[in-house]
Amino acid sequence: MDAMAGKQSFEADQLPQIIVFGPPTFYKSHDKEFSSKFRVLKPWQSQLPLPEFLTAQAKNIRAALCSGVFKLTASILRHLPSLELVVSGSVGLNHIDLLECRRRGIAVATASTLYSGDVAELAVGLLLDVLRKISAGNRFVRNGLWLKQGDYYPLGSKLEGKQVGIVGLGSIGQEVAKRLEPFGCTISYHSRNRKLSVSYKFQPNIHQLATTSDILIICCALNEETRHMINRDVLLALGNEGVIVNVARGAIIDERELVWCLEKGEIAGAGLDVFENEPYVPQELRVLDNVVLSPHVAVLTVEASRDFYELASGNLEAFFSNQPLLSLVPNE
Amino acid sequence: MDAMAGKQSFEADQLPQIIVFGPPTFYKSHDKEFSSKFRVLKPWQSQLPLPEFLTAQAKNIRAALCSGVFKLTASILRHLPSLELVVSGSVGLNHIDLLECRRRGIAVATASTLYSGDVAELAVGLLLDVLRKISAGNRFVRNGLWLKQGDYYPLGSKLEGKQVGIVGLGSIGQEVAKRLEPFGCTISYHSRNRKLSVSYKFQPNIHQLATTSDILIICCALNEETRHMINRDVLLALGNEGVIVNVARGAIIDERELVWCLEKGEIAGAGLDVFENEPYVPQELRVLDNVVLSPHVAVLTVEASRDFYELASGNLEAFFSNQPLLSLVPNE
Repeated sequence: MDAMAGKQSFEADQLPQIIVFGPPTFYKSHDKEFSSKFRVLKPWQSQLPLPEFLTAQAKNIRAALCSGVFKLTASILRHLPSLELVVSGSVGLNHIDLLECRRRGIAVATASTLYSGDVAELAVGLLLDVLRKISAGNRFVRNGLWLKQGDYYPLGSKLEGKQVGIVGLGSIGQEVAKRLEPFGCTISYHSRNRKLSVSYKFQPNIHQLATTSDILIICCALNEETRHMINRDVLLALGNEGVIVNVARGAIIDERELVWCLEKGEIAGAGLDVFENEPYVPQELRVLDNVVLSPHVAVLTVEASRDFYELASGNLEAFFSNQPLLSLVPNE
Repeated sequence: MDAMAGKQSFEADQLPQIIVFGPPTFYKSHDKEFSSKFRVLKPWQSQLPLPEFLTAQAKNIRAALCSGVFKLTASILRHLPSLELVVSGSVGLNHIDLLECRRRGIAVATASTLYSGDVAELAVGLLLDVLRKISAGNRFVRNGLWLKQGDYYPLGSKLEGKQVGIVGLGSIGQEVAKRLEPFGCTISYHSRNRKLSVSYKFQPNIHQLATTSDILIICCALNEETRHMINRDVLLALGNEGVIVNVARGAIIDERELVWCLEKGEIAGAGLDVFENEPYVPQELRVLDNVVLSPHVAVLTVEASRDFYELASGNLEAFFSNQPLLSLVPNE
């Protein structure tokens, strides 16, 4: 037993070292597997403040794995003088100081399109739930009201025949569109650029997309152009039978205006997996019957967890063996 | 005003007379429109017991409109000696004594495939909700637990790649299958007969379908062959990662066995729009986290309500003007 322990620790010393920030939600399911391949520094287990921890232990660290909510700022990067690679567990990269990484020549690998199918599924699920009042009906039955009050009668709205506007027709947006086609929806989209590979109608601005759509599905990245892109004007253009679904980032919608529009009946409903100040969700939203609120779980499936492990460990192994990364973010 | 009222009532006397049983859920939204075309007898508004009401007022009634839950039995039909047509607002006809209708030569018109899209949408919505834990996540956020307890971590299950078994590949089953294809599911089915028009794999019995499926979606009619077709054996064959969705009739599943399997973790979850003794839903089901319960609303959309009115009034008008019915049930 002692000999074994000695052997293990000797071998562990030979493993390439990485640091994990966050940790990514999926990390805990694969801690053992990562630890069999890498010597893993876990700052969240230390009593030291992060800068001191990094100064003491991370001077020679060449690769980091980080979650989608951990803010990898320039001041943290300053404590990692040997860093060459950041692997993010997330699709969005708004939590990483990409400019600083670029200046320092630090490569960034992302989850890329790995979770697009998972996210698209949740978008369609939230949309059907809002339109067909599934969670609301579920509350009605669970609370015993069906027996007490008789039939549940607020009629749902049929997805078939609806005009769906997709905001951001990247990998996720396209996966959503593909899944909505056999429901008999007409798809149009707004994106930075018109996509020549698709036949969906392009709308040159978000206001026009909202005006011509019954449903808006937010699938774009959060950046300074898209922050609060969905403001009161856009919501009013969507109209009082309109429904909005957000599986991207909370701050793309001006949340205060969204609450106002939902409360006033200026739009019909919302399905939200993301919020401006997670995990805080405004009380006003939490009591509305015409919204479905989801705790940022669009990628949280058993299947995506396995995909995450394979891509993240694959990227790290490629890096340490001087092979090309599996999912490098282009240094635009 | 009086003259108008007199004129209206004179004209109303000329309108063909119908009786409405139930009434169908959608009827109330279209009462005015029906009443402008037909003189409508409404037994539910009378103090008289139904047989007396019928004897007193319905001797000459030739056409009836009935809901999907009103039991149109031989003993009620006996009080309607002039009846020639029953128009049902529902797809299923298990509430009508079809043998007695056939014996008497009473034509039966049904909603036929009118609501197939609405029902298929709800089936997919319930399935995504159960797999991706949408209603459970919604409860978590609404109850403020995200802020208090941190991330919601029970991982969902991805629909992509799943084996879906459809029980009854009629119009609804086919609409469900069509919508699931772009999710990357593999579809197979069990039906009374193999369908030559589809390429999905046919399974000759329900047990084999359950054994080879991750998900069962019940879309068949309720009859003596299908009552309790989904028994404990079938559920155990589906297995502890299996999910079942029912948008057909409650009694196709042995509900007591379903509750047992859900409580014991013998299957993973269920999305149910129908129950054995509606509106009663067992307390044991109402407290489970891995089920989504829906108060029999698969057809309850604004769009289906309009479709119902058009088909029902169209059938009645066709009948009274001696034209072929729009949706006659074949007298097999």
